[in-house]
Amino acid sequence: MNPAKVIDIRGRKLGAETPLICTPLVGRSRENVLAEAATVAAKEPDVIEWRVDYFADIANSSAVLETAKALRAAIGDTPLIFTRRSSKEGGEPIAIDDAGVVRLYDAVSASGLVDFLDFEMANDPGQLRQVRDNARSHGVRTIFSYHNFADTPGEDFLVERFLQAEEQGADVAKVAVMPRERMDVLTLLVATARADAKASIPLISMSMGPLGAVTRMVGGVFGSSLSFAVGAAASAPGQIPIADLAIVYDVIRRARGGK
Amino acid sequence: MNPAKVIDIRGRKLGAETPLICTPLVGRSRENVLAEAATVAAKEPDVIEWRVDYFADIANSSAVLETAKALRAAIGDTPLIFTRRSSKEGGEPIAIDDAGVVRLYDAVSASGLVDFLDFEMANDPGQLRQVRDNARSHGVRTIFSYHNFADTPGEDFLVERFLQAEEQGADVAKVAVMPRERMDVLTLLVATARADAKASIPLISMSMGPLGAVTRMVGGVFGSSLSFAVGAAASAPGQIPIADLAIVYDVIRRARGGK
Repeated sequence: MNPAKVIDIRGRKLGAETPLICTPLVGRSRENVLAEAATVAAKEPDVIEWRVDYFADIANSSAVLETAKALRAAIGDTPLIFTRRSSKEGGEPIAIDDAGVVRLYDAVSASGLVDFLDFEMANDPGQLRQVRDNARSHGVRTIFSYHNFADTPGEDFLVERFLQAEEQGADVAKVAVMPRERMDVLTLLVATARADAKASIPLISMSMGPLGAVTRMVGGVFGSSLSFAVGAAASAPGQIPIADLAIVYDVIRRARGGK
Repeated sequence: MNPAKVIDIRGRKLGAETPLICTPLVGRSRENVLAEAATVAAKEPDVIEWRVDYFADIANSSAVLETAKALRAAIGDTPLIFTRRSSKEGGEPIAIDDAGVVRLYDAVSASGLVDFLDFEMANDPGQLRQVRDNARSHGVRTIFSYHNFADTPGEDFLVERFLQAEEQGADVAKVAVMPRERMDVLTLLVATARADAKASIPLISMSMGPLGAVTRMVGGVFGSSLSFAVGAAASAPGQIPIADLAIVYDVIRRARGGK
């Protein structure tokens, strides 16, 4: 942990000793999103992510903003990540094109309703700059991300992805990869530790699926600052229930000499 | 997990999907050892280790055998590891020399009271052969071990220690090292996974201290078949309470699709 990297969002500290626990919302309608939020909020995650690619009415930006507003009212001061995951990186197919997504991100930034935007590094560089600059001008943080649901690229490649996010001006860098064998799980952890030693922003990483699930538990020891856990429904393979993850964090904290 | 490697001891399976949980006894007298055993047995560890280097009367082999007999009566069918850890490898100073230790190991083998003998690979090769042959002739298993409380040697060196134990005829290979930085923790896990892919015997490994404590939790995913946890008193830095470790194993088992 490097205190200089810690980002304080509504009192939650991203990049501190214990990773924050984030729960995704994957409802298809306003009603579903709000019902999920009510279920999830009761489990007290540190952060909530709205996966807007699941939202059927994504093409209607007024509907998205109206739902974001109701969501903010429902979750109070819990930090909120706004994420459209592309179908190439494990998300749902949507009814708008990339330019439409950027316009939506800009409108959501301007609304002040969310704290983070997750935007994929595979996007057009001009769009990455636009999303970043617009977010900054409204005090919203960006997470630039890389996902690979097929396999785990080499250690150097993964280190580069984290550092690329920082070079492109992100506030947080995220890398999620799929292991094919247990050595891949360690490759992700080693790459995270190496990147964390070089980067000056907090990192988020995980090895997905059942094999990689332990990285959601111990990633914090190696430089990952946030872990996704299931509140109502999983958004990616290998996520474990919030309560389980909180217990494991408590055991790790005590084992490491904390309270 | 490789089913061909699994060792069944009194119904406990060393080398199966979930690591066995072993609790050390560190009492200085017969009374202390038995009191500890009673406390520990109530917490139902899979395996118990008697760290005989803590036993003040170690020079009196009748007293050792008599205590082993009372211990076996107290713990019933729980597998028992008999271990003299040398002061060079983190143990207590004792009143007998190495030849005396070998005679003690041979007497304990012949008694049929214990299931495993842990003997350090740093011992004289002739003594290693003697302990191994004598144990085999009495149906007792050997764990050949390497401990480093100062630091974590390189990956290749650690892989070699596991494989050396197998070459020397051990039934189980154990490596315990101290991390100085978080990358050392991953070095131990990578070395374990690499050695497990080559070895045909179960391995036990851990990175010690608060920093390495997570390896006691997730080592099973990377090839470690047993983890030491605190029942009454710790025998090495970084050990966590049995109940905590059991909870973490339960979370990992469910996350990996088990029941």
